[in-house]
Amino acid sequence: MNNAWWLAPAREIDPASREQALARQQQLTKPAGSLGQLETLAVQLAALQGRDRPRVDKVWIAIFAGDHGVVAEGVSAYPQEVTGQMLHNFIMGGAAISVLARQLSAQLDVVDLGTVSPLNLPGVRHLNLGAGTANFATAEAMTQQQLQGALQGGRDSVLRARDAGTELFIGGEMGIGNTTVASAVACSLLNCAPPLLVGPGTGLDAQGISHKTQVIEAALQLHAEQSGDALGSLRALGGFEVAALVGAYMACAQEGIVALVDGFICTVAALVAVQLNPSCRPWLLFGHRGAEPGHRHVLQTLQAEPLLELGLRLGEGSGAALAVPLLRMACELHNGMATFAEAAVADRPA
Amino acid sequence: MNNAWWLAPAREIDPASREQALARQQQLTKPAGSLGQLETLAVQLAALQGRDRPRVDKVWIAIFAGDHGVVAEGVSAYPQEVTGQMLHNFIMGGAAISVLARQLSAQLDVVDLGTVSPLNLPGVRHLNLGAGTANFATAEAMTQQQLQGALQGGRDSVLRARDAGTELFIGGEMGIGNTTVASAVACSLLNCAPPLLVGPGTGLDAQGISHKTQVIEAALQLHAEQSGDALGSLRALGGFEVAALVGAYMACAQEGIVALVDGFICTVAALVAVQLNPSCRPWLLFGHRGAEPGHRHVLQTLQAEPLLELGLRLGEGSGAALAVPLLRMACELHNGMATFAEAAVADRPA
Repeated sequence: MNNAWWLAPAREIDPASREQALARQQQLTKPAGSLGQLETLAVQLAALQGRDRPRVDKVWIAIFAGDHGVVAEGVSAYPQEVTGQMLHNFIMGGAAISVLARQLSAQLDVVDLGTVSPLNLPGVRHLNLGAGTANFATAEAMTQQQLQGALQGGRDSVLRARDAGTELFIGGEMGIGNTTVASAVACSLLNCAPPLLVGPGTGLDAQGISHKTQVIEAALQLHAEQSGDALGSLRALGGFEVAALVGAYMACAQEGIVALVDGFICTVAALVAVQLNPSCRPWLLFGHRGAEPGHRHVLQTLQAEPLLELGLRLGEGSGAALAVPLLRMACELHNGMATFAEAAVADRPA
Repeated sequence: MNNAWWLAPAREIDPASREQALARQQQLTKPAGSLGQLETLAVQLAALQGRDRPRVDKVWIAIFAGDHGVVAEGVSAYPQEVTGQMLHNFIMGGAAISVLARQLSAQLDVVDLGTVSPLNLPGVRHLNLGAGTANFATAEAMTQQQLQGALQGGRDSVLRARDAGTELFIGGEMGIGNTTVASAVACSLLNCAPPLLVGPGTGLDAQGISHKTQVIEAALQLHAEQSGDALGSLRALGGFEVAALVGAYMACAQEGIVALVDGFICTVAALVAVQLNPSCRPWLLFGHRGAEPGHRHVLQTLQAEPLLELGLRLGEGSGAALAVPLLRMACELHNGMATFAEAAVADRPA
């Protein structure tokens, strides 16, 4: 797959816009650096968007859903039919991300990659890649064809987002069992021991975490030949929605759309994307540091500095959505504050 | 002053609204606890506002400004006339807090307690308590009359906010030299050594910090009889805008308006308020943990858990304003999400 679409380089960043934005930050009526991370953010958005007045008004939130064969091993606190029920809840407006999307005037794009019971929900894109993945405790989770279909499913959402004039892309996920999947992929990529990354997900107790860890340890042995191979680990241990996120992040970088990464599962997808195509790293911003212990580790690997840390462990893109007002206010401050000269305020003596 | 207005108890919190909000959180379509701090926040707001559907649509931002005699000791990187120039910038819409207030559709109330040059700016309330405070390196910063005027100035803003139907009060401050003042007050109240709390403020270098520390150490010796006395420390070492914030926080609690505390200076004012009238503590939420090293210490003393940590060190109420969308989204999630029953989603097995 040397000519695969995802190997194409990310859009280049505009150094002139970055310099202009940096210079403007120094002239605004505040002590230099006093807006902390929001200053860095405004400059980064200006450089990525190639304009001196960045904006993130048009936000696209794609929710990728899929089921996981490994749930047969008893790794989740919730029954598997919840994936499909939550798809219904997303489009009916009752889920957390539905509420947040309304608040942000964001476009919600709900994509079902493949769930255990075939669904036909108006307003959901059903890609029917399979009735969930295979159980990675006994087989590779995805076929090559399913993997490519899921990557393309993520990219297709980004292409729709691009055509809608999107200024910020958020990927969210839903899939009972997917913290198990994300932990396994991260361990395989980073060659690290499961106890370092595995956590309670949406609500396992200590015994449940111990069992989940054992399931992942056994699977890493079964699929040991994929260790360190991003695409191979994703195919053998990943999930449809994780692969869709990987495809989406790479496509965002290629199309020049800033992506705001959500929690643990999305961050693992970002790690896969960066390993497959390092040029996409600058296009990824990080919304929050979640409660799942593995999240901190994967964020460090990516040298990512999330904006929020609120003890979230929901997924659905909710942590990224909660950070959108900070991006918007960083832009408004950058674009709307007066300079020392405009306001006739004395800057500090040189 | 045993019959001073600020000793009256805070409004009582409604346990029934708290219980109802807690019960509702358990029924929403998400794993229990998965929205982390936002769940606690929604329940807390419901209890404080005494309604099962909390809201913070109407936000009042009061900016209290004042000058400080201690600036004569060379403790700030900025010239003192900046206080007045920034008052002009606040009302002209060019300051950070002006931009944020517009974004939040918040009412901005700009109060000049007393600056070195007498000003007459349309849109600013000039209280004329004095041409800045006295230099606490040689005298008490305020007279008893000035202190009471400043406390009342803060309370008056809250009474205006109440009459406007305010659901959330933010106090901000502007005053060249006021991290020196706040550090001195906190050291006197907490009986702690200045090097533990003193930091760069808006931009001192190491030598500047060392000098600022020495100025505070000497002042603490001069006013040693006020050590541990909240009102005495505020009078001897505080500033007009700090005292106004103290009055505002106590009045918020008495009037039943939730207050969102900003950075280091506001948090020191909150500490004074809580020491003077402990019943006001539950009415104080905290917006962000700033870059000034003393902030962390004072927050810990108050057992406060701020929502943001973005390396801010601007003041003006900006850190609190940046946290407002999180409060609003916590309310929207609480009020707008579907329950498991409404959405026909399976909750986890009991």
